[in-house]
Amino acid sequence: MAGTTERPRCSAYIAASVDGFIAGPNGEIDWLHAVDREGEDYGYAAHMATVDALVIGRGTYDVVAAMGGWFYTGKRVAVLTSRPPAAPIADETFHAEPLTSLLARLASEGVGHVYVDGGVVIRAALAAGVLDALTISWIPVLLGAGIPLFGGGASRSALTLVESRAFPSGLVQSRYAVG
Amino acid sequence: MAGTTERPRCSAYIAASVDGFIAGPNGEIDWLHAVDREGEDYGYAAHMATVDALVIGRGTYDVVAAMGGWFYTGKRVAVLTSRPPAAPIADETFHAEPLTSLLARLASEGVGHVYVDGGVVIRAALAAGVLDALTISWIPVLLGAGIPLFGGGASRSALTLVESRAFPSGLVQSRYAVG
Repeated sequence: MAGTTERPRCSAYIAASVDGFIAGPNGEIDWLHAVDREGEDYGYAAHMATVDALVIGRGTYDVVAAMGGWFYTGKRVAVLTSRPPAAPIADETFHAEPLTSLLARLASEGVGHVYVDGGVVIRAALAAGVLDALTISWIPVLLGAGIPLFGGGASRSALTLVESRAFPSGLVQSRYAVG
Repeated sequence: MAGTTERPRCSAYIAASVDGFIAGPNGEIDWLHAVDREGEDYGYAAHMATVDALVIGRGTYDVVAAMGGWFYTGKRVAVLTSRPPAAPIADETFHAEPLTSLLARLASEGVGHVYVDGGVVIRAALAAGVLDALTISWIPVLLGAGIPLFGGGASRSALTLVESRAFPSGLVQSRYAVG
């Protein structure tokens, strides 16, 4: 359509407790290990293979940075933050701009599929109407409190279930198209 | 165990949006109809056949009352509320007491399996450690805002996945044992 800004396809692939938290009150992710199984990555590598770039928030970036490694070698990583760190870990870039303008920039670089990660970025993608696909892995736990995946205040979005799978660990993974 | 108060087994069977709401900001449940399919009750009748009694909150009761019918004929229904209405619709009873003392009363009446319904009552059952089973039907929608199924502030509970099924409507129903 004339006048439509090109943007990459945006997918979220995220684990949450059944009560909708992506981390505990102090950022704890120990509960994710309850579903660790030798040789089972719950489709993570396959998902990563389809994406050209990641857009992550500062919270997610700090969790990754604190782990002392870098998981994203070979992928374009853009971090949405107004407080860029003194130096990057690898070749990631930092952007203090709206998600949609960052997506337009990535499209102009030839990025066709973006993995949006982190609660803030996923909610921003939903709010901007640019989230195309959502894969949620429900971890079999109720955390009771923590950092929510979804914040209130977004508008209603219909989802179309593409696939749902239950794993022996009790993880239920549902893949939706948004809209 | 000596000194242990007997209580009925407690199950929740509830539908929620993927972002964890059981109703919209003004109590809207129109979005539930997106999964209405002729002849498909998503296991509701089978679940009801296993329960001896229902414990519901005042919010749920008011929704049912506003529908102008009574769905619970033949079941013992106890409503937890400190504001009992002037008259019952059928033979339901009203109780301004903690959930656990109501459950002890029901046990003494011979009730073995209670369906706890409504966000407030389900959260109370979780907080009191008396919720034994949780069936969530994820409706394929993000509401963005509304009445949450789970409130913050509860303690962590492990879940054991018993079964998960995806239906052609896009509803994903997962049944968990709590603890």
